[in-house]
Amino acid sequence: MKVTENLELRDREEDCININPLQAAGRTYPETRMAVDSYVDGYSVCDWCAGALCKMEKPPVKSFLEEVSAFLNMDQTILTNGCREAKYSVLHAITNPGDAVVIDGNKHYTTYVACERARVKIYEVASNGSPEYKINPEDYGKVFEQVKKETGKMPKLAILTHVDGSYGNVVDAKKVADVCKQHNVPFLLNTAYSSGRMPVDGKKIGADFITASCHKGWAAGGGNIGLLSVTEKWVKDVFAPSAKYGVKPLEIIGCSTRGSATLALMASFPRVRERVKHWDKEVENSRWIVKQLEEAGIRKLGVKPSEHDLNFFESDILYKISEKHKKKNFYLYYELKDRGIVGIKAGLTKNFKFSTYGKTREQVEHIAWAFKDIAEKFG
Amino acid sequence: MKVTENLELRDREEDCININPLQAAGRTYPETRMAVDSYVDGYSVCDWCAGALCKMEKPPVKSFLEEVSAFLNMDQTILTNGCREAKYSVLHAITNPGDAVVIDGNKHYTTYVACERARVKIYEVASNGSPEYKINPEDYGKVFEQVKKETGKMPKLAILTHVDGSYGNVVDAKKVADVCKQHNVPFLLNTAYSSGRMPVDGKKIGADFITASCHKGWAAGGGNIGLLSVTEKWVKDVFAPSAKYGVKPLEIIGCSTRGSATLALMASFPRVRERVKHWDKEVENSRWIVKQLEEAGIRKLGVKPSEHDLNFFESDILYKISEKHKKKNFYLYYELKDRGIVGIKAGLTKNFKFSTYGKTREQVEHIAWAFKDIAEKFG
Repeated sequence: MKVTENLELRDREEDCININPLQAAGRTYPETRMAVDSYVDGYSVCDWCAGALCKMEKPPVKSFLEEVSAFLNMDQTILTNGCREAKYSVLHAITNPGDAVVIDGNKHYTTYVACERARVKIYEVASNGSPEYKINPEDYGKVFEQVKKETGKMPKLAILTHVDGSYGNVVDAKKVADVCKQHNVPFLLNTAYSSGRMPVDGKKIGADFITASCHKGWAAGGGNIGLLSVTEKWVKDVFAPSAKYGVKPLEIIGCSTRGSATLALMASFPRVRERVKHWDKEVENSRWIVKQLEEAGIRKLGVKPSEHDLNFFESDILYKISEKHKKKNFYLYYELKDRGIVGIKAGLTKNFKFSTYGKTREQVEHIAWAFKDIAEKFG
Repeated sequence: MKVTENLELRDREEDCININPLQAAGRTYPETRMAVDSYVDGYSVCDWCAGALCKMEKPPVKSFLEEVSAFLNMDQTILTNGCREAKYSVLHAITNPGDAVVIDGNKHYTTYVACERARVKIYEVASNGSPEYKINPEDYGKVFEQVKKETGKMPKLAILTHVDGSYGNVVDAKKVADVCKQHNVPFLLNTAYSSGRMPVDGKKIGADFITASCHKGWAAGGGNIGLLSVTEKWVKDVFAPSAKYGVKPLEIIGCSTRGSATLALMASFPRVRERVKHWDKEVENSRWIVKQLEEAGIRKLGVKPSEHDLNFFESDILYKISEKHKKKNFYLYYELKDRGIVGIKAGLTKNFKFSTYGKTREQVEHIAWAFKDIAEKFG
């Protein structure tokens, strides 16, 4: 239906199985939606402002962030407008233009763009390429040495995409952290596709900074919202307050997510804290569907066996169908939708990715059936 | 009621008259709330991603932003995470650390903190102090000359708070723009308390940049969301894309409000575009209530007569009551709440501000009655 003029409402998730990896773990719970509705008006979160969003006691943002720090096993946490904004905050706080920063080849584009915005010199740790696209932790050390050779100094920061959004490869973050420690390089772990889905233990890993995407992985929905967790050592530099307004952290210009997204994140948190304990079931579902699709000739790229709910596939069979189907390369999107499934980007048939996060086994079986049915019907 | 653990839902606005200036014009409309509910899940706005949020055609973000540019009479507009983030984007794009920037003494703290984050040298145009706190446009020229004298150069940017959030003073922005033009200083107009409430014509004023707070003034509620509008001349510098990801503007790290707040803003826009035409009624209500309160001995500070819905008051009468009332300085908050009014900060009695924005005349009369009734009952 139309709301106003040409603005249409979105189909509710309840109407279909959504396998978009960007959205699967950002889906809200009923109590999240109640919180969003309750705090839907502008600046409603500021009813009882105590000077700064992250220090608020009503709603209990301060104690919530303490719980988040414990959950991630880090020392202090602030709310950010998203994961990209959290990455930029660290970059802006601890680097100067021209400094070297090392990132991984499977990074999200926002890691690169945040670095560009911070005007640092970007060095990349390449993956091993097709078909695995694996990041080798030891390669961080090699790139650090290259930076040293070229610039005379170690890089100011290393960033690792814990789980990348293309292949769902889970990198051994502890090994990367160890390499960083050996070279005395601060280490930022981007958990956009890990925290909120799977257990992440910052201290055990050895991360200096953890950034999280909560509309993506913590069922926060609503507006965009992220987290920046740091170890005690970095509080002074990264959470530094304004010289004039002592309660306002510079890197979030005082208050970041000053709206319903904060309440949404808080409302979802008890479920998120619980769900990461069942990560083994998610991996089991993921491996099961990969097996089914590979039997039907649809090949998984990335590291095998799958260690994440996101998988990337390559399919000559589905691509060939697009050459004769009357809906051309859009047929797969519509055929899946006819079977109650959305989330694969319209137009893709040869290479695509999807996620089974949060799906029941019955739903996972239905997804496998749908791909097989389409391949058989038109192949 | 409680949602989860210790998280309580907020009273809905329908239950009372909200006169908090921060919230009065950020209240959502029914169709806004429908849009928020429809797009409540994480990254739902990205269903049909066309590479960048501000270029999306479904939902029609691109054409919406063109309409916003026309509405503000500027050339190009992008979505930001809020007004403070928009200000920082301009500062970061066109200044270097150490550059001089001129701001006004009535600025919101975020203008100052955004400048600090951009590491620029801050010069202030002071107001004329109590009781008017008026910003004299000509004083910008004097401060420009002072900057020139001290640094050898004109400032890189001048920022004016069109309407300040303390006294509701409306500054003659065109006069400030003229002074900026005479001195060849780029001019940013912060419309957090003006656009979305009252007509703002960027070209007529002569602004290079306009920043807006949409959860505050455009009935967008939901998450935090703002706008950054610029003239053609500044598109290249301020909306510059990533060198590697050509569709992604650096200063919003690709996509800013990638959630329901964008849809909320779009859903409210037809009403916002209409409501600014009735600004005269808002000013009329504001002047009427000031007259009533002053008759009761509650004095308005700031420029008179009032030109905005926000007014700042000083009251010895209400303060004296707090010295003997059993609820002490919290009595005013509770006495107003008993009369169906919320939005004055709990604990304030001597100096406080409120807004009559969007209220019916009956509601404005009720607010005036409530203050008089409290003063009479306890005074």
